Amino acid sequence: MSLPKISFVAAEQEAAQEALGQLIALYGQVAPDDADVIVSLGGDGFMLETMHRFIDRDVPIYGMNRGTVGFLLNNYNEDHLPERLARAQKVTLHPLVMTAETSDGTRHHALAINEVSLHRESRQAAKLRIRVDKKIRLDELICDGLLVATPAGSTAYNLSAHGPILPIGSDLLVLTPVSAFRPRRWRSALLPHKAVVNVEVLEQKKRPVSAVADFTEFRDVASVDVVEDRSISIDLLFDPEHNLEERIIAEQFLP
Amino acid sequence: MSLPKISFVAAEQEAAQEALGQLIALYGQVAPDDADVIVSLGGDGFMLETMHRFIDRDVPIYGMNRGTVGFLLNNYNEDHLPERLARAQKVTLHPLVMTAETSDGTRHHALAINEVSLHRESRQAAKLRIRVDKKIRLDELICDGLLVATPAGSTAYNLSAHGPILPIGSDLLVLTPVSAFRPRRWRSALLPHKAVVNVEVLEQKKRPVSAVADFTEFRDVASVDVVEDRSISIDLLFDPEHNLEERIIAEQFLP
Amino acid sequence: MSLPKISFVAAEQEAAQEALGQLIALYGQVAPDDADVIVSLGGDGFMLETMHRFIDRDVPIYGMNRGTVGFLLNNYNEDHLPERLARAQKVTLHPLVMTAETSDGTRHHALAINEVSLHRESRQAAKLRIRVDKKIRLDELICDGLLVATPAGSTAYNLSAHGPILPIGSDLLVLTPVSAFRPRRWRSALLPHKAVVNVEVLEQKKRPVSAVADFTEFRDVASVDVVEDRSISIDLLFDPEHNLEERIIAEQFLP
Amino acid sequence: MSLPKISFVAAEQEAAQEALGQLIALYGQVAPDDADVIVSLGGDGFMLETMHRFIDRDVPIYGMNRGTVGFLLNNYNEDHLPERLARAQKVTLHPLVMTAETSDGTRHHALAINEVSLHRESRQAAKLRIRVDKKIRLDELICDGLLVATPAGSTAYNLSAHGPILPIGSDLLVLTPVSAFRPRRWRSALLPHKAVVNVEVLEQKKRPVSAVADFTEFRDVASVDVVEDRSISIDLLFDPEHNLEERIIAEQFLP
Repeated sequence: MSLPKISFVAAEQEAAQEALGQLIALYGQVAPDDADVIVSLGGDGFMLETMHRFIDRDVPIYGMNRGTVGFLLNNYNEDHLPERLARAQKVTLHPLVMTAETSDGTRHHALAINEVSLHRESRQAAKLRIRVDKKIRLDELICDGLLVATPAGSTAYNLSAHGPILPIGSDLLVLTPVSAFRPRRWRSALLPHKAVVNVEVLEQKKRPVSAVADFTEFRDVASVDVVEDRSISIDLLFDPEHNLEERIIAEQFLP
Repeated sequence: MSLPKISFVAAEQEAAQEALGQLIALYGQVAPDDADVIVSLGGDGFMLETMHRFIDRDVPIYGMNRGTVGFLLNNYNEDHLPERLARAQKVTLHPLVMTAETSDGTRHHALAINEVSLHRESRQAAKLRIRVDKKIRLDELICDGLLVATPAGSTAYNLSAHGPILPIGSDLLVLTPVSAFRPRRWRSALLPHKAVVNVEVLEQKKRPVSAVADFTEFRDVASVDVVEDRSISIDLLFDPEHNLEERIIAEQFLP
Repeated sequence: MSLPKISFVAAEQEAAQEALGQLIALYGQVAPDDADVIVSLGGDGFMLETMHRFIDRDVPIYGMNRGTVGFLLNNYNEDHLPERLARAQKVTLHPLVMTAETSDGTRHHALAINEVSLHRESRQAAKLRIRVDKKIRLDELICDGLLVATPAGSTAYNLSAHGPILPIGSDLLVLTPVSAFRPRRWRSALLPHKAVVNVEVLEQKKRPVSAVADFTEFRDVASVDVVEDRSISIDLLFDPEHNLEERIIAEQFLP
Repeated sequence: MSLPKISFVAAEQEAAQEALGQLIALYGQVAPDDADVIVSLGGDGFMLETMHRFIDRDVPIYGMNRGTVGFLLNNYNEDHLPERLARAQKVTLHPLVMTAETSDGTRHHALAINEVSLHRESRQAAKLRIRVDKKIRLDELICDGLLVATPAGSTAYNLSAHGPILPIGSDLLVLTPVSAFRPRRWRSALLPHKAVVNVEVLEQKKRPVSAVADFTEFRDVASVDVVEDRSISIDLLFDPEHNLEERIIAEQFLP
């Protein structure tokens, strides 16, 4: 077996930086542009940053947990890294593309691997109109916010907002409100992954709303489009005994 | 256009029987074996019976609502039936196969289009062990019951038990507990449609449990297997302006 | 301090029986009729049985956990029992009185400390009419079942059925459906503790329903009345550092 | 019967202003300081403003619905107003006192009749520590927000955030998170009405949080205390056939 060229990246926290030193000492370091694989050292937040950073590069990412949560990460282990990379299983994710039009009429684009969310900026509740495939599905949703999540993101913000977890590979998106005032018992909707979701912000001066694609925030949006982009792929590597599909199923049976 | 040979079937209720008479007067009647299409007159319950009755026959079914609920049904209209059948859209459903082993060791098979459910028979809570693809996912679920629903069935019993609605074509099954005592906050799990679910009944003498596939009930079961059978197809016909996929999405946005 | 006369009672399980022997050796044993205090050794189920057994006697009960769950119980500890009993805090519970009329017209009475529940007996959903203080509140609830719980019982069956936990002393009852089919999003209702709840069973031949007051079950009921009886009191004793009120609040903040 | 001196107040909307003119023509108008009763014309929002405006005055308020929602309001009717006021039933509410310490160390006070809520100001989730009666109940709640609602407010923001409805007179408060990330399944807690709730904002520079008492908002808070103030009373008047207690019970049985 020829050894893979690994580029290690690490979060700022001490545990991640220590691991970075030890792994470079053991396996060397190459620049990301020359790497066969990126190894991300940190928590889920840093892993999400790493995925965004390399989203245009056709290089797989193997995360090891040196931080909190660890949902997208393998357990930390310094030993036999090349062998583990060789037998790792690949999961391919596709991001959402958010197109947000702000109140000044300009349009902004950003990618989201987990979710696109809208949120009220002030104490005034947001008033939103939801279209799916150009058809109005909710003429007026009064709420704290709203999100569109991918299966990979369904265990993140979506879960906190009482939305269901989606298995990886389920070809679905989930649309979940945050504190729906009216219709007040509306919970969430599962949509085919090809659905084009548009959210129109009503009374946007009185009720300013921000839109966030993972980390990228735009304030004072007037309209937001969300659609999955299958032309972009992110390949993650997982140890076979504990892969992402398995984790998402396991997560659903947690006590 | 050559007219399709229609076999009308109707529920016992007066509205359904009246419709039967009027439609036969207008369009004639053939025996189910000679029919190009079955037209079912009644509510959702009778439609489910009709689907089971013709599940082995390769004939599409068009339901018209002469009863309650009407989720799987088209609106009632006597006019232009052949034209409406000609432009109807087809949705293909696949049933679940339930294999229930009763406490005397015999094995029983039944098909379910909506869901397979287990339920305690006495005031003693059920104690169940759940395996998915032969892996134990819940070692001990104490509950009133449990169900495995298809997307078509996700708006039925599953919804009442607080499970999520699945879009038609989502290639998923949903596993939902009824009154989970322990783990007490367990809600439900979405599974790939190929999942093989096994439910083992623990302490079955003290805690007798029945299993139901749509209508077919077996008392005192020891173990139940549930798996989708894609070799069996049920073709339903829907008016294009109001098809099943559309209804299931619309259902999720109901106030 | 004169020592209290203690009557120890124990569940059949080995851990409870062993504790019984050791505690009698240390502190002696008196007949329940002569006791100043009953000490119950077992789990929550046995504690509930003990409470029912002595419900007509004006004697406090101190439970020690030799079984499962332990919500109504103190931690097990053989030392300094008289001192602990002396400084224990008293919580007074009042039971519900269930009056169930069965389909043959006879009326049955039973007490419930946790909850009165109704449940379908067959695969046919129950169809229930709910009156509160003689006013119809739900004309037709189609469901697996329904329960009325006290604050002490709100952490038991009610919680499994997705009902809220009520603090001890909150002067409320909670009415919670099990798998509400219609109205399908109905969750639960909090009622003043003086509320008189009546549940009428509709279509009782087609849809047989049983009623249970804690353990006491009546099959084929036609109508069930539930009302709190403040003329009956059950005094429980708790170590001050971990009393029932504290536990019920703590329970609500469990992760 | 001597006629009561009525002071009419009205929202800006046309329907409210028209009603104002007609009612003054029929029954006259006095200054609020001279009034025996305030009649508020508008929706629930204006009623809440009216209650705050007269919270220091010992004068009952009768609301008539000329706006949206109408939960705290009587049906609009111009006829026989003095008679209706004479036979109206009184409901007494007590507000919450919020004491918010902002990051500059100053302390602000405001009253809330419905709820005190905290909410993240940026895309960073809030990190909160919750104390009840000085005891830490949740060491770290990561969430979009959190609210403490009175029974009267339990049908407002609390309900949208999936909290339970509390009957008027239930002597409880409810503490409900908005999108709890961690502990991720935490739903809400019912507390005795005498509970003193303190919310400490952790990492307040990175994670700014605002606090709102009904309408009054303070940005960048470091710590918020919430306690019911029974020394302040607000008397609302309701037509007996449709009083607030009845409405809150009825609301819980809505389909």
